[in-house]
Amino acid sequence: MTGVLVTGADGYIGRAVAARLTARLQAGEIDSLTLLDQRFGIQNDAFADGRVRCISGDLGDPCVLAQATEPAPEVVFHLAGITSRQAEEDFALGLRVNVVGTIGLFERLRVLGRRPIVVCASSIGVYGTPLPEVIDDLTPVNPTLSYGAEKRMIEILLADYSRRGWIDGRAPRLPSVVARPAAADGALSAFASDLIREPAQGRRYACPIGPEGSLWLLSLPACVHNLLHAADVAADRLPAGRAWNLPALRATARQIVQSLCKRFGPSLADRVEYRPVPSLQAQFASWPALSTGLADSLGFRHDGDLATLIAQALRH
Amino acid sequence: MTGVLVTGADGYIGRAVAARLTARLQAGEIDSLTLLDQRFGIQNDAFADGRVRCISGDLGDPCVLAQATEPAPEVVFHLAGITSRQAEEDFALGLRVNVVGTIGLFERLRVLGRRPIVVCASSIGVYGTPLPEVIDDLTPVNPTLSYGAEKRMIEILLADYSRRGWIDGRAPRLPSVVARPAAADGALSAFASDLIREPAQGRRYACPIGPEGSLWLLSLPACVHNLLHAADVAADRLPAGRAWNLPALRATARQIVQSLCKRFGPSLADRVEYRPVPSLQAQFASWPALSTGLADSLGFRHDGDLATLIAQALRH
Repeated sequence: MTGVLVTGADGYIGRAVAARLTARLQAGEIDSLTLLDQRFGIQNDAFADGRVRCISGDLGDPCVLAQATEPAPEVVFHLAGITSRQAEEDFALGLRVNVVGTIGLFERLRVLGRRPIVVCASSIGVYGTPLPEVIDDLTPVNPTLSYGAEKRMIEILLADYSRRGWIDGRAPRLPSVVARPAAADGALSAFASDLIREPAQGRRYACPIGPEGSLWLLSLPACVHNLLHAADVAADRLPAGRAWNLPALRATARQIVQSLCKRFGPSLADRVEYRPVPSLQAQFASWPALSTGLADSLGFRHDGDLATLIAQALRH
Repeated sequence: MTGVLVTGADGYIGRAVAARLTARLQAGEIDSLTLLDQRFGIQNDAFADGRVRCISGDLGDPCVLAQATEPAPEVVFHLAGITSRQAEEDFALGLRVNVVGTIGLFERLRVLGRRPIVVCASSIGVYGTPLPEVIDDLTPVNPTLSYGAEKRMIEILLADYSRRGWIDGRAPRLPSVVARPAAADGALSAFASDLIREPAQGRRYACPIGPEGSLWLLSLPACVHNLLHAADVAADRLPAGRAWNLPALRATARQIVQSLCKRFGPSLADRVEYRPVPSLQAQFASWPALSTGLADSLGFRHDGDLATLIAQALRH
């Protein structure tokens, strides 16, 4: 008997997670599914199933939170959050949603006493600038973005709630998930999605990082696989800190364009112009070699190669 | 023109900080002093000076917070907090005061727009078990106490507010500060104070750590010196993360007793019995070699030797 709650269920990742969980519901693998978001826009397959409950409201509203957690869920995917761009532009909002809202959720789950599995989407944004020359499972975390600071605060809290036995928390750190739809208020790293989507769809694109700028990437399907897998891993195999880096494919902007050209023809390269924005370079285009020994051993996977990643990224 | 606010001003450290700041007020070095605590018990020298404003109330109450920060302070010593013992026993209280209350203070200071210097008392409790074999300025921080998790969350937030230019934050990490008065709700490391105070005052003492259990110690006067100095250090000399370990004297329980014997006579040792409590050993009695290169270069100091530390600890 498993009741599952997804917060941020109408977001880019949330919709895809909700769709996969709806399929699991229909397959009898889970018993109930509650989707929470501020509002629900585009119709989703999930909504066609009467057993899926959609709640529109703010996670920070105690009434909404109470409704969403009644009955007490056994698994929570906490994907609600303010993006890195918004968190830099409207600090109070980011703090309220990403930190205070999450504290409210954790406290509610603690009081309910059911010790649910809680998969919180963390982010590689917890690593601050200057980024180290290599990042592995032991690299210290020193955020230099408000978004990263907020995510790191929650990782620490999630580890403490887990240590005390109130939740069974898991905080996989997501790299750039592609290809998000164009959005004015998206993540500061949204150019990774634009760089794939825009030239692939025949439009010109001014890339805000240089051709040698390096990214860590995961397609949406691979991301969803990893998030669902994060709920399934045995708790005793997780690191004590309960947060870890997901595998990601490392690629430069030039490599991405080259790979797009193999699929869409060499003229695609003519549609990409490099106009590096210095303020983005250090945090968003300097991702070093990544070693994810722990995640690899636990069965987390990236897309394997750039051609596959691009195919998966453009499928959605 | 300097207005100073002290939160937790009636606590063990707060009273001593308030007394030193009152002396600075009387010397004309600061212009106004506001002391905030939930209540004020023992009369303090500070209260005799009409220019010292005492506010009784909860920092989490927006009215109290508004009153305490009007006019906007230029320097804040944020010492209010729930101890490690209380934070383990009443998690919701620790979270509310140590995290949510501090967020409220930071937000208030941000909105006031004066960019005050904010000295936040952090703690070596941010280091979790198993403690590393040596701790220096680069040792990663992985809390395994709720108190440590809460302090680490605030260190991260303080660094972010500082990066964004809203406060000039400084988070020195305090070791065991001795000798606190006996208190049922004190820090889990309070035995460090008991071990000095009780046999020195002629009482028998059952030490809850073994004779080789190692502590990091700072006398109250040395702690106050370091906290005031933390406000004076030039911002550009501080680490980017704005948190650092204060120097501390490392000593075993046996060494402390030996030093007490030199002062009070060899029979003092007969009043100390070792009855180690396993749950305390890993977090509170296994402090390794400490290297504080950064703090040393900035002028922070411990007591120098154990005889001096004990003399200073017993003076107050």
